[in-house]
Formats: sequence, C-alpha cells, structure tokens
Amino acid sequence: MSIKVASNGYGVIGRRIADAVKAQPDMELVGIAKVSPDYKAKLAVEKGYKIFSADEKGLEKFRGNGIEPAGTSKDLIEKADIIIDSTPGNIGPSNKEVYADLGKKALFQGGEKHDLTGFSFVAQCNYGDAAGKQFTRVVSCNTTGLCRVLNALDQEFGVDRARVVIARRAADPDETTKGPIDAVSLDPVHLPSHHGPDVNTVMPHINISTMAIKIPTTHMHLHSAMIQLKDKTASSDRVIDTLNRTSRIMLVNSKSGIKSTGQVLDLGRELGRPRNDLFESIIWEDSVSIVESEVFFFMGVHQESIVIPENIDAIRAVMQTKSAKDSIHITNQILGIRK
Amino acid sequence: MSIKVASNGYGVIGRRIADAVKAQPDMELVGIAKVSPDYKAKLAVEKGYKIFSADEKGLEKFRGNGIEPAGTSKDLIEKADIIIDSTPGNIGPSNKEVYADLGKKALFQGGEKHDLTGFSFVAQCNYGDAAGKQFTRVVSCNTTGLCRVLNALDQEFGVDRARVVIARRAADPDETTKGPIDAVSLDPVHLPSHHGPDVNTVMPHINISTMAIKIPTTHMHLHSAMIQLKDKTASSDRVIDTLNRTSRIMLVNSKSGIKSTGQVLDLGRELGRPRNDLFESIIWEDSVSIVESEVFFFMGVHQESIVIPENIDAIRAVMQTKSAKDSIHITNQILGIRK
Amino acid sequence: MSIKVASNGYGVIGRRIADAVKAQPDMELVGIAKVSPDYKAKLAVEKGYKIFSADEKGLEKFRGNGIEPAGTSKDLIEKADIIIDSTPGNIGPSNKEVYADLGKKALFQGGEKHDLTGFSFVAQCNYGDAAGKQFTRVVSCNTTGLCRVLNALDQEFGVDRARVVIARRAADPDETTKGPIDAVSLDPVHLPSHHGPDVNTVMPHINISTMAIKIPTTHMHLHSAMIQLKDKTASSDRVIDTLNRTSRIMLVNSKSGIKSTGQVLDLGRELGRPRNDLFESIIWEDSVSIVESEVFFFMGVHQESIVIPENIDAIRAVMQTKSAKDSIHITNQILGIRK
Amino acid sequence: MSIKVASNGYGVIGRRIADAVKAQPDMELVGIAKVSPDYKAKLAVEKGYKIFSADEKGLEKFRGNGIEPAGTSKDLIEKADIIIDSTPGNIGPSNKEVYADLGKKALFQGGEKHDLTGFSFVAQCNYGDAAGKQFTRVVSCNTTGLCRVLNALDQEFGVDRARVVIARRAADPDETTKGPIDAVSLDPVHLPSHHGPDVNTVMPHINISTMAIKIPTTHMHLHSAMIQLKDKTASSDRVIDTLNRTSRIMLVNSKSGIKSTGQVLDLGRELGRPRNDLFESIIWEDSVSIVESEVFFFMGVHQESIVIPENIDAIRAVMQTKSAKDSIHITNQILGIRK
Repeated sequence: MSIKVASNGYGVIGRRIADAVKAQPDMELVGIAKVSPDYKAKLAVEKGYKIFSADEKGLEKFRGNGIEPAGTSKDLIEKADIIIDSTPGNIGPSNKEVYADLGKKALFQGGEKHDLTGFSFVAQCNYGDAAGKQFTRVVSCNTTGLCRVLNALDQEFGVDRARVVIARRAADPDETTKGPIDAVSLDPVHLPSHHGPDVNTVMPHINISTMAIKIPTTHMHLHSAMIQLKDKTASSDRVIDTLNRTSRIMLVNSKSGIKSTGQVLDLGRELGRPRNDLFESIIWEDSVSIVESEVFFFMGVHQESIVIPENIDAIRAVMQTKSAKDSIHITNQILGIRK
Repeated sequence: MSIKVASNGYGVIGRRIADAVKAQPDMELVGIAKVSPDYKAKLAVEKGYKIFSADEKGLEKFRGNGIEPAGTSKDLIEKADIIIDSTPGNIGPSNKEVYADLGKKALFQGGEKHDLTGFSFVAQCNYGDAAGKQFTRVVSCNTTGLCRVLNALDQEFGVDRARVVIARRAADPDETTKGPIDAVSLDPVHLPSHHGPDVNTVMPHINISTMAIKIPTTHMHLHSAMIQLKDKTASSDRVIDTLNRTSRIMLVNSKSGIKSTGQVLDLGRELGRPRNDLFESIIWEDSVSIVESEVFFFMGVHQESIVIPENIDAIRAVMQTKSAKDSIHITNQILGIRK
Repeated sequence: MSIKVASNGYGVIGRRIADAVKAQPDMELVGIAKVSPDYKAKLAVEKGYKIFSADEKGLEKFRGNGIEPAGTSKDLIEKADIIIDSTPGNIGPSNKEVYADLGKKALFQGGEKHDLTGFSFVAQCNYGDAAGKQFTRVVSCNTTGLCRVLNALDQEFGVDRARVVIARRAADPDETTKGPIDAVSLDPVHLPSHHGPDVNTVMPHINISTMAIKIPTTHMHLHSAMIQLKDKTASSDRVIDTLNRTSRIMLVNSKSGIKSTGQVLDLGRELGRPRNDLFESIIWEDSVSIVESEVFFFMGVHQESIVIPENIDAIRAVMQTKSAKDSIHITNQILGIRK
Repeated sequence: MSIKVASNGYGVIGRRIADAVKAQPDMELVGIAKVSPDYKAKLAVEKGYKIFSADEKGLEKFRGNGIEPAGTSKDLIEKADIIIDSTPGNIGPSNKEVYADLGKKALFQGGEKHDLTGFSFVAQCNYGDAAGKQFTRVVSCNTTGLCRVLNALDQEFGVDRARVVIARRAADPDETTKGPIDAVSLDPVHLPSHHGPDVNTVMPHINISTMAIKIPTTHMHLHSAMIQLKDKTASSDRVIDTLNRTSRIMLVNSKSGIKSTGQVLDLGRELGRPRNDLFESIIWEDSVSIVESEVFFFMGVHQESIVIPENIDAIRAVMQTKSAKDSIHITNQILGIRK
C-alpha cells in the first residue's frame, strides 16, 4: 500500500518534493498546498497535481486566476499519512500544532530549529533513529552536504576536527530582489557560524567550526573544507577512494573542464536532470590533498535540490516501510543518482 | 528515408542540435565532431553518440581520456547528407571549403557573416527560399527572436520603423572567464549596432535601428522594443492577439509572478524542458502598449536554445522533404513548443 | 550674508549635499539630521558637522554610540533659511507640513512626486522659474541627466520625439541586500515608464517615451537614447559640438579606453573627485550617430551625485541671490566640474 | 636630498605609487612609463607627471593622441635612483636585466616570483633586512594583509598554525572583460593555494595553509581566518587590543553598519581617501572570537591599494634613509592612515 504524502508548500523545496514523491513506486502524492496562484501553480495543475489553498481566503484568489482548488491545506493534511512541510521558516511551529491536532506525522526542513522536532535527519547518518517519530527535521542543504562527507571520513579515518568556510549563494535564480550585487556580506558577522552546531544535531561527536559569507551567485554553495583526520596514514588517494564509495557524493575533476560552479551547473543540464538538479555533494577530486593528516577539498552544494532524496528517505524511515539501504537505493534509482 | 545529419561542434549550439536531431522521426544523427574530451564528451558517449575528433591530433587526446573516437571530422562529414556547423565563428569559411569539396550541404550559425552563404534563414520568414541551397546560415539568437515578432507584426499591421535596444547577457552559464562583473559594456560603442542590418538579411524591407549593451547576466538577452506600425488603428489587444497566434512566441505575464528574466529561467525549469531551454521568443503580455501607433514591449531571448528549432526546420527546408507548415509543426511537437 | 542651509537626511544625497554646501562661499551648513548613529555619523562628527537626531527618541541612540546630538531635526529646521530634504520618499509630505508650519523654504528630491511642490527644477532648464518658491523639487538623477541633453538638443536642433531605454543600476554600492544578481528585472513592466512624464514636469513640450530595466550593477545608470530632431540637416559633428558647449555634459571616447561604465567609474577616481562622484551627464562621443535626422547615443548617469550641483543651484535660485549663469559657474568651479 | 623615484607602469599599482611618491617630503617622482595613451595618461599629464613611453614605437602612439612623451622608459630609468616596477607579471625578469645593466635599484610587485629578487618585503615584518638590496619584491595584496596580522599575533601570542580561505575579487572595477559573472571559480583547484607559501617568503617560520576561490566582485578580497595560537590564555579582547595597537590594521564593526565589503568601500569614500583607497587590513572587530585558543575573524583586503604604503617604505628601507618606525610614521601620515 502506498504512503499518502502531502506537500505543504510549493516553493524551492516543495515542488521538487512533489515531483519526487510522484515518481516513487511506494508513495502517492495526495496534493500540494500553496499560497499564490502563480505560474508554478498553473504548471502544477497541468501535471495533474491537486492544489489546496493555504487558507479559506486563498480559495478565491486561485479561482480568480482560473485554478479550482481541491480545498484548503487543512483538507489536504487530513488526506495524508505524512506531510512534508516546506513552508517558510517561522510558520513551522504553528503548522506543527495543526499536524499534532490531526494526529499526523510530518517532516520539517532545515530552516526550522532542531528544537521543533528534537530529531534531525540525514539518511546516511541516522536513518534508523527516525523510526516511528511523529516529527522529524530534514537538515538544511549545507548541513546535509557536510554530514554525508563527514560521516564517510569519520567512519574510515576518524575526524579529529573539521573547519569549513562556506561561500553561500545569496539568492536562488528566481529570487530577483535579493543581493548583494558586488559585495561579500558577512552572514553572520559573529563567529563561528551556526552551521557547525547544526552538523552536531545529526553527528554530536564531530568537533567542527564553520564560517560563512554570502556572495553574488545564485547556483550553488561552495565549501572550502579542512578536516583533520585521526588516522595519520590517510592519503589523498584513500580519501578519494572513500568518497567514491560513498552514496550521494559525486566527484568531478578540473581535467574534464569543471573548474567552477558554472560548469557544475552545466553538468546538471547535460545529465538531463529535472530542473538541472544536483542531489549529490559535488567534490572536486583534484582538489583533495593532505597536509599533516589534514584533508583539504572544495565541495559544491546545490541549495535547491540536495535535500530532496533525504526527504524521500525520511518518509520511509519514519513510516518504517524500508531499510536504510533499500530506501537509499530506490530513491537514488528513481531520481537518477548514480550511486 | 531518414536525413543523415552531422553536428560539427558540440558546444552551446552543437549539443542541443544533436539531441534535437536525435529526437526527430525523419532524421538520423550520424555523429558529432568535437575538439576537447571534456565532461560533455563523456556524457555524449553515454547517450550513444558517435564522437569524431576535430582532427588527427585529437584522436590521441580522446583516447587518453578513455574515449574511443569513431574517426575524424572528415570521416563524419562523409557520412552525412547535411552538416550543422556550430564551430566557433572564424572557422566557418575554411569548413565551408571542406564541405564544398565533399559536395555536402551545410548549415552555419549566426556567428558567421551573411556573405559566407548568401542566404540567411528564419523558418517563419523564408522557409521556402532555402529549397535546394547548398549553404544556409541560420541567423543569431537575437536576430531570430526579432524576425519572428517583426514578421508577425508586419503581416498584420505593417512595420513602419523598428527601434530596439538589446541588453545582452555577457556570458553563458559555463563561460566563467568572461565579464563584466559590475559594469555595462557598450558593445559596440559605434551606433547603430549590427543587429538591425542582420535582421535585414532575412527581411530586407524592414526599417530597423538597434543599440546593444552587455550586462552582467548569463541567462537571457532582453530586448526593449519600440515598433512604429503602419496601421494607425492597432491596439495593444490586437497586438497581443497577433502574438498569441504566432508560432514560437510565448507570452508571459507579471501577474503570474514573472517580473524578470530570473523567473523566465525558472519557468523553463518548471516546463521540464531539456537543459531548461526556451526555444520561444518570450514576450511580456502586460508590457505591450501603444503610443501613437508605436508598440512598446519587452522580449526575452534565450541565447543558448532559440535557434535550435530553426536549425531543425532549415534541414528539412534545404532537403525539401516537408513544407514549412509541416516542419514547424513536427519540430514544435518534438521539442515541446506548444505553438 | 550666507544662506543658512540644513540637510535633512544624510544618506546617498544628504551627505553629498552637506559637503557641497559646506564648500560654497555664499552658504553656511547649519547642520544635518540623521536617523542612525552609524559610521557615516561618526565621520560627519569628525568633519565638524552639527548632527541633529531625526526625533526625540533618537537622541539616546546617538548618545549611546558616543555622539552628542545638537538637538532634533526640528531644532535644525528652525536654524535654517532653507532645508534640503533628502529623506526617504514617502516622508516628504509630512516633512513639508513641518517646514510650512515653521515658514521655511525647502527643496525635495526626485523620489517625491511633482505634485508635492508643483514645481520641478533643473538648473539649465528653468532656473528663473524657481525665484521665491517656498517648495521646489529637484528631479531625479535620470531625469536630470536627460533634461540637460534634451534642452541642449532642443535649443539647437528642435526635438521632435525622444525614445530612451534606461538600464538602471539595481543598488548603490553600499545597498548590499538588494538584487537582482543574475537577472534583468522589468521595472516597471507596464510601458512606457514614468521617466518620460517626469521629464515633462521640467520640459512639458518634449514628446518623449521611455522604457526601464533593472540590472545587476551598482555604479551608474546607462541610457540608450534615440532622439528624432526637427532640423533635418543635423550631423553627428554638430551634435557633438553642441554637447561640448553644454555645461555639465562630459564627453568620453572609447579610443581613450573608456568602453564601459567600469572605466567611467575609474575616470571619476582619476579625476580626484570626492567619493569618485561624477556630477556630469557622461556621453560617449564616438557613440553619437545620426540616422535619418535621428540621433543615437549612449549616456551614463551617476545616480549618487548628478543632482548635487542642481540642488546647490536650486538654493540660490529659490533665494534669488544669483543669476542662473553665475550660480552654475560658481557651483561648477567649487565642485570641480570643468564646464 | 630627495630620492629620485621612477614608476615603471601606470596601471592599478603604478598610478597610486606615482601619487604617493609625489606626496612624500623626501622623494621626487622623476616620471612614469606607460604603454597606452589612454585617459589615465591624459590625466597624468594634467597632474604634471613626465610620461615616458614603454618603447620607441610607443612615442608615435602618444604623439598621435596629443601627448608629448619625455622619452622612453630607458630614459626614465637612467634618471632614477630607484625604479618601482609595476609592469604586468611576466615582464619582470627582462626588466630586471635592464635595471641591472644600468646599475639601478628596483622594487618589484607580488605578481613576480620570490626568486626574481630573493627577498620579499612587508614593512612591519622585515624592514631592516631590505637595507642596501638592489632588488626587492613587495609582496602581493593578500600576502601583505596576512603578514601584518600574523606578525602582530605571532609576537603577542605565538602562531601555532594558520588556516585561511581567501574569497578573491575576480576583477578590478575597470577590468570589464573578466568574469565569472554568476559562479565561483576554484583558483587554483589544487590545494593548498600558493598564498600560504608566499607568506613564508616573508615569515618563514609560520605554519600556514590557504585555499582560494574567485568570486564575482570587484572591490575587495575577503579572508576567513582561523589561527591557532600558542598562548592558551588568549582572549578575543586581547586579540582585539593587539590588533588595535598594530599599525595599518583598521577595525570595523557591524554595529556601526559595516556588514559587508560594500560598506567598507563606502567607508573609503567617506574617509575622503584618494580613489577611495584603503591601505589598511580591514578586520571586523565583532567577528573576532576564540574557540579552544584558535582565533577566528574576517578580514578585507583592498587589492588595489594595500601595497602602496609598503612600496613607499620599501624605497626608504632599500635606500637606508630612515628607520622602519620613522618611515612607517611618515608614510601613514602622508597617506592619511591613522595608525
């Protein structure tokens, strides 16, 4: 029997989740909830998705734009076994109350605080711990990207201390009112940044400090990572080999012409991915180097899509329908993730 | 019997043409010629395309990167009925000699001069004139975008004089060494720009002057058009109606949230187009307005893909296998162009 | 006797006006009013400017940051003969009431509507009409840049119809939260834009239509102008000669390496201007060309500083202390404008 | 008696050096050598600088643009006691031979390799070692910025290990052909970057590793620094106090509104610096924090100007006319550096 999934929100994350859920053999997309009857709403209708307006007032707005909603978000929630909440950050807590009142399970995104659910999820790190949880938080794009790599390195070599500087894209491609244009914003100015502690919500034992800047790009976060390993015999070859064996990590190489995030974006296009999405942590193979058992590398994180496979896995983890290994395998296959 | 097509070049245009040819029911992609064994080459192999190295020297380069070429570009040319040449601008003339020596038909792109072929093509304007031509030039992205609209307006209202300012994207997404970063380049400084005369290679009777600037964007050219009509009774409603009836023009509206080229790019993603391509001239419906029988509007031109359907049609036009109407219809259907 | 001038506002315009007023031989800067005790406030103190907080509440905020205000903006207004209001757009109307109650003259900026004052000013166009006005609006940067040129061309050749496309810088260098980053915003989508009618508040008889787009730059607006002249014998040489003789127009040439707004910014630096300001309309001499008595050219407008000399002249025009010719001469000399 | 100084090169560095030399009480600018008769050449003439063309052929080019050169660069070199060479990177070695042949002292810039001179200079680190050297290299902007801080921290706390990620501005404001536009380039991909070893040319004992990315900005490099101190009792207050006492370090604070490099650029304007130059290493006071005796902070480096005071000091160091303390004091005072 299919898991009935609702996507509450149809923005950057919500619309990708809807498509991914729709494509899974063991899930049914019961509908999406959306605030605004914009071009995304119209194309959702064409895809055959049932649209629910966020509230009563919204019903008229949709009808005024030629879209007949199937009800309000509350109607949608009632139809679902589990809700994927990708509404803007500060609405999470009040949504949680609604889900609780209706006795529904829900996944929240990384914009919410860990305390909202008390449990933060990355498939390769703690799939099993999600079993039966009513509320789960799938961590943010940067935390997801980091956890995959840190987990792999920690299991193979032991991570002694991690230092990462994140150059964040300042806006998504369609967020055209956000800057900066020709400047670097310190975001936050106060150090270290919250990204380190956020990794610790998934992997509490990792000693990590992070800094983050905001730069005038739209396509990808870029991590400069310096990770001190416990295994003093670690070599760059062994690190590369470890990353090569790790699911949802894609190695790229400047020798094949990929020298910037611009070519990575283009790689997403050539791979034929929907919306050019890159669900993997992208690591430059020829950047991997070791200095005194500290590994240095560059990693790209596609902010719009990297958490999509994690959400799909979290659904199965919470519903206890598949093992970690099986879920990751199915999700990867359906989404076109090669390993 | 299928038309045997070779794609000489596998960059911005060449790889799109390869995919588009591959998808046509009446064409066969005999192979692609490419200079560099980069990530695009590797993914072309995965798609099953036969790769030919640009020259003898290149054979080793490809083999050194694990790709076995099927020969050199000369071998490829011999196998084809028609070659789509999308090599960089100044190689066109010497390539033409090679095609001529082998008695092959060829299409060149808008980076070449009109004089190279003596005939410049836009499907909706002069399909019939291509019949039997050995050498044809499919005009540039901006000229293609303009010709579609000018042709439609000219037939319905008569175009008295056209003035267009083109804000050109300075680089494609993967051209990461090109600027400017925080400046507007005048390109060219001398006025009017060459875009007006280039329109005249297709539509000689149109009185048009253009100006062009280069700005720090990567996704789309943006035209600000002011077109004086002969029909003094023209209204914005009638103009919109005309554009709505014209093939390969897509109307968008700020009311549905599309207020910048950023949302247009996103629309390409939501439409599920390969590489997010937008083959249509994108016109903002709510920008269309009339002042003293002069129509004003904004138009977006996706520089990477707008000429792809034109190339496909040009193949049939030159080979005389279909009528204009039939070819445009098939091409649109296969590429997902709605009208 | 000096004219006592207050600068209400100390942002982009206000701080430049304060410095410019301070430098005039016939004016006294009685102080500046400011909302926030930021780095600009601290450096204003170092320059010896008297700072007034916008309101009573602000007094404490300034003191908490080590700045002792000389009072509130109301105290400042009382000390002045004339107030230069450069507060954010929508505060103008309520400020006007305060000035009216205290019987003071005031200048407003182009962010306010023409109706607020009923009179809009550009020194070279209508200096004499300002005599004795209590409230005057100095028009926006783009309107100022256009009026100077249109006035010169109209007097020499007669302007039949003007068409201008303005590529607007999306943010000032220190406005680091504004975008777009890699997109062109249509601002406004509806056409023609308000810039044409705004020119008409100064020069009602000019037939002008404008379009405007917003692009990812910070240093300068760029106008693409197409101006139909009445004098059918006009040549580009004569146009250049006319612009050369017009005050506050600076001709630049790509032959000397100035091919983009980036080099214009750099020119401001080499000229040793305070804050690199360019008070002139910058016109590319070698872009000037004539097609059927229509003149085409590119013009740069430094959004931060072009209205500064206009404000200084408007003070004298309103106070009736100098003729237009004398005021423009003095202002130019003090600000380093060569003609 | 004045030191006769020639500036060979009049680009980003050369023109600033010319102005700075001109302003020193103990130096005489004997002239500048330049390749192109562009707008910078014309304004140099207006400043009264003697211009020498790079070679014989250039003489005509200058005359053709209305500039009478005082000779060729060889003539200039003969007139000088010391030459500041700021010609493009790869010309240094051949220039060195010319200087050697004429028995002249010369300073080279950080674009040259350390081996060219065998001695690399930062005033606060090794002023005394320059005494009498014929050839000295003033290190690059990023190395200069880092050495000032590392030297101060090393003397006060001992530096155990430094890790720095440098987000490099991709182009100067007038370099309008360079990108990337909407991407991060890994430059270099191979790690660690050369910046660490370059610090070691000045401070050989510092254990430092660096990574560098290139981003779409023009105004400033941004360093994310993580520096392990030997003194386990170090506090952020003591670090701030140390930086406050160090010459050519300017502390800024987000509380005064400086939250990005955009506001730092604006600060340069408000300070009234020529060309808005910021000769100091700019450190965000409220970013300074300590985790397990490792200090974290953000630092801005103005690529165009930070090496100017170092070049001026290097002249005196090499000519042995002043002590380090006296030279730094004079240079700071003349250039408006507060400490």
